[in-house]
Amino acid sequence: MHAAPDAAAAPTALAFRRVALVGRYGAPVIVEPLARLAAFLGARGYDVVLDANTALHAALAGYASAPIDALGSKADVAVVIGGDGTMLAIARHLAPHGVPVIGVNQGRVGFLTDISLARMEDALGEILAGRYVEESRGLLEATVHRRDGSSAIGHALNDVVMNRGSTDSMIDCAVDIDGRFAYTLRADGIIVATSTGSTAYALSAQGPIVHPQVPAILLVPVAPHALTHRPIVINDTSTVTITLMHGRDTSAHCDWHQRFDLSEGDSIVVRRDAHSARFLHPKGHDHFAMLREKLHWSETPERLRPA
Amino acid sequence: MHAAPDAAAAPTALAFRRVALVGRYGAPVIVEPLARLAAFLGARGYDVVLDANTALHAALAGYASAPIDALGSKADVAVVIGGDGTMLAIARHLAPHGVPVIGVNQGRVGFLTDISLARMEDALGEILAGRYVEESRGLLEATVHRRDGSSAIGHALNDVVMNRGSTDSMIDCAVDIDGRFAYTLRADGIIVATSTGSTAYALSAQGPIVHPQVPAILLVPVAPHALTHRPIVINDTSTVTITLMHGRDTSAHCDWHQRFDLSEGDSIVVRRDAHSARFLHPKGHDHFAMLREKLHWSETPERLRPA
Amino acid sequence: MHAAPDAAAAPTALAFRRVALVGRYGAPVIVEPLARLAAFLGARGYDVVLDANTALHAALAGYASAPIDALGSKADVAVVIGGDGTMLAIARHLAPHGVPVIGVNQGRVGFLTDISLARMEDALGEILAGRYVEESRGLLEATVHRRDGSSAIGHALNDVVMNRGSTDSMIDCAVDIDGRFAYTLRADGIIVATSTGSTAYALSAQGPIVHPQVPAILLVPVAPHALTHRPIVINDTSTVTITLMHGRDTSAHCDWHQRFDLSEGDSIVVRRDAHSARFLHPKGHDHFAMLREKLHWSETPERLRPA
Amino acid sequence: MHAAPDAAAAPTALAFRRVALVGRYGAPVIVEPLARLAAFLGARGYDVVLDANTALHAALAGYASAPIDALGSKADVAVVIGGDGTMLAIARHLAPHGVPVIGVNQGRVGFLTDISLARMEDALGEILAGRYVEESRGLLEATVHRRDGSSAIGHALNDVVMNRGSTDSMIDCAVDIDGRFAYTLRADGIIVATSTGSTAYALSAQGPIVHPQVPAILLVPVAPHALTHRPIVINDTSTVTITLMHGRDTSAHCDWHQRFDLSEGDSIVVRRDAHSARFLHPKGHDHFAMLREKLHWSETPERLRPA
Repeated sequence: MHAAPDAAAAPTALAFRRVALVGRYGAPVIVEPLARLAAFLGARGYDVVLDANTALHAALAGYASAPIDALGSKADVAVVIGGDGTMLAIARHLAPHGVPVIGVNQGRVGFLTDISLARMEDALGEILAGRYVEESRGLLEATVHRRDGSSAIGHALNDVVMNRGSTDSMIDCAVDIDGRFAYTLRADGIIVATSTGSTAYALSAQGPIVHPQVPAILLVPVAPHALTHRPIVINDTSTVTITLMHGRDTSAHCDWHQRFDLSEGDSIVVRRDAHSARFLHPKGHDHFAMLREKLHWSETPERLRPA
Repeated sequence: MHAAPDAAAAPTALAFRRVALVGRYGAPVIVEPLARLAAFLGARGYDVVLDANTALHAALAGYASAPIDALGSKADVAVVIGGDGTMLAIARHLAPHGVPVIGVNQGRVGFLTDISLARMEDALGEILAGRYVEESRGLLEATVHRRDGSSAIGHALNDVVMNRGSTDSMIDCAVDIDGRFAYTLRADGIIVATSTGSTAYALSAQGPIVHPQVPAILLVPVAPHALTHRPIVINDTSTVTITLMHGRDTSAHCDWHQRFDLSEGDSIVVRRDAHSARFLHPKGHDHFAMLREKLHWSETPERLRPA
Repeated sequence: MHAAPDAAAAPTALAFRRVALVGRYGAPVIVEPLARLAAFLGARGYDVVLDANTALHAALAGYASAPIDALGSKADVAVVIGGDGTMLAIARHLAPHGVPVIGVNQGRVGFLTDISLARMEDALGEILAGRYVEESRGLLEATVHRRDGSSAIGHALNDVVMNRGSTDSMIDCAVDIDGRFAYTLRADGIIVATSTGSTAYALSAQGPIVHPQVPAILLVPVAPHALTHRPIVINDTSTVTITLMHGRDTSAHCDWHQRFDLSEGDSIVVRRDAHSARFLHPKGHDHFAMLREKLHWSETPERLRPA
Repeated sequence: MHAAPDAAAAPTALAFRRVALVGRYGAPVIVEPLARLAAFLGARGYDVVLDANTALHAALAGYASAPIDALGSKADVAVVIGGDGTMLAIARHLAPHGVPVIGVNQGRVGFLTDISLARMEDALGEILAGRYVEESRGLLEATVHRRDGSSAIGHALNDVVMNRGSTDSMIDCAVDIDGRFAYTLRADGIIVATSTGSTAYALSAQGPIVHPQVPAILLVPVAPHALTHRPIVINDTSTVTITLMHGRDTSAHCDWHQRFDLSEGDSIVVRRDAHSARFLHPKGHDHFAMLREKLHWSETPERLRPA
């Protein structure tokens, strides 16, 4: 997490002249905030472009729109009003273009959407003026290699998962790291997660919370057959290959938005993607403050802190 | 776990005159031990009846055979050579008939198959002569109630599981206990396990080990979304109703041998079955000795035990 | 948990004529509620007796007082205003006398104190009139046997713990169940808990939640050296012997109110106590409703429950 | 983990001319291997210097000895025959001098001692000739700041622990990361571990396994009061400050070899030490092979690996 001191010293509106707006799909409650935000930005001279799908559900007259795939070339920054799921989707699309994303939540703080509706204008005014904290979040690229020679590629900001379906009680897989056999696993599945994904599915499967600054990949077994299998943290420069040895009805998932059916002998190769997602936060952004709120860690009683 | 002192005092061969033999299906290595055992029993005057499916794979001349569904009325006791999976299947079939089961493992002790091939004849000689320890293991009955009014019934000695398939990331379900709402759960699934099942799938999902003597039902969430959901132990007289609130591609399983597709609004009602499985063990059977071996708990160094 | 239908049908004030009042020691905030409660009970003809220690901190004129050890013979029922810790202490004292306890919390529901200050009078009026649900909670008796031949006895409603002190990194102990060796354990410590204690220290050490109705004793290792050691649930008729094999600065604790220093070779024998604590709850008391609130399990959204 | 290709191409005996030998203190069984190893090295022209404490227990005529504190300036490399505990101690002493350490186990592979006695000479011959894999393992420096203004410093290769003693049931502490409040914790204690320490105490407290290459510090709560506290992985450039808010009989430990009594208000500041320990392994050293053996992960059946 790095501040942008130069930008802060001499904010140049040009850096973020074109602002894309994205709302949670099909959520009527975000129409009003979207309109409010578009008006706010328009009044300040920013070019506003609506995500086409958002525009379908929230018709705001007088603004251009573009399909999500085109936003990367039509915007300098994107603002998402919605939840972590929408943020994940937009961040995956914009990462290859280097376009940063700003997240506004709808009332309850998200792991990725840290700005509240109530202070949305203030926060965006500051950020777009160059006063922000930038975070880079690594993505994963998963290549599915099938025994028939075919392959497919997916991308994830949270996690790549190989897991059993509903007709079998477990899968057997082999895990290789950097081309060397590491271990076999009998389990419901295995999660390959980024630091970002450490607070998603991996956390439910007993994985640790990994700070976004740690250059790590997490390997988390889901309901492992052997009690000695535990979450493993490896360097994010590593390449992880998971080969399905046994398991009917098995599939691989990227952020649960892409799904690949797998057969025995198929493998997925997971590595850090060439691109990273860029998140912009208000100055003073505090990862642990967010964790305290999301995980209900009790605040420290002031009287107990030593002077 | 109760000894059978009367039987021990005055062993009556008649109690166990007819002995069913079952081998792990399709496992060639059990043909020789089966033949050895059949000969041993025949020589001692017991009537041997082979499970028909076993007989298909291990044709032993001169012995009667019967389909598994008929074994309950044709045998006084059954001997299984194989693994825990075979034991589960046979025990479920014989429980309604009150016919006890004896388990012989093929080299590695099982949670349910405690007699080794090497000392099979000695152990069986003793048990069939009435010198044994009997254990009663409760079964579960699961009734699936579908929104369309239809229903179906399954039985489990280990566990009844409701779980997501491969197309969705989680299910939402509501758990009622004895007709009263207990809690909702967002998770990969939920396991309703017997004490017997506590060392099966439930153990992989962080459940406790429950001694077979404890009259309990275990509720174990699999990869729960909220960190505060934990395994719960309730009385085995309770009725547990699990209603699927959200979840595509969801199913219920009984010991992974019966499977029921579920739709939103369907529920499964799980309660203790009217019948219990009967297991016979050699005198001196020790549940914790089995756990020590299966879970690789290190033995106590003799020098360290105080005198 | 059983209702008391006869009492409910024909409430007899005599059953609970003498009511002991206990407040959390040294908590000024409970003086007002105590006075309020004493006046409420006095006006209805009950004989009020204050716990002597409570009376020291909350001098209420015109009421008798008695030391906690004498309350058992001077009261028919006790009302505790405070937290779970106070409830534990009073319940241990009153269990041998069969005197039931009613718990009033001071704003935040406790695992044992289910009545809120706001509806204290209503709830107590109902309970004292015989309309209540009674729960019996087993206690543990721990006997410390020292190598020098001496012994000591403690009692616990939550748990008996053997644990390392601060000068050593772990203890080695041997666990025997009903006189038979079960396993050795290398760990920070081991918790022997009742069902009541399953939501106390044992829960922090990965133990399951055990419903009070389950006749069980929990064995929960704390930070076990071997990954295969897990919480174990055994029958509450069992006797558990834990022998300290290695460990300096080791001690045993009963509900953290009694402490026994231990040396290598010493053992503690834990079994169900002859007496049980009696808790009275308002009609409609719901153990899972309490768990939902204490553990922040989210309520089920009404729209999602099938009709 | 980096190979040393130049050294491998042109092994220069001078690089490792002086070899220190250290045996597990007070372990008679290592006298013979030590003598064997000293003879082996002497015959090849290496200068052998015995750790003085080792020499006390294993008097080998004809070899120089030096106190452990002096070994750093008297040896180019050290060979430890013993267990992980001895390796930790020697590595902490030699890290400031940049002297690498080689670990020989006494029969059972250790997390840090990967060479077996049986192939000790072969492995050492190769390594000392420059054919090795070198690993750098970060140490932690802990500074205890007391309310009375005094301070003390400790070092750890595994972990720095703050934990309760035997007279109190828990501690309350506040964790600051890089000078910013992160969270409070009520628990038995908290472990600040290196990647190396991730397979030590932290693993018993549900921490993840962290590969030595990951530049991380682990924060693992021990038996946390709140169920939402989980192991946290942060960057190893971070400074962690833990302040004791409540807790009698509390202490801090560095690798369990240094102990500091703490009072309320005292804090420990933990950061990466300026020096790292250097470990030398035979070519082909495989961290996951070691983990598979230590944690009993089953090997992959060859027939199941796809071609």
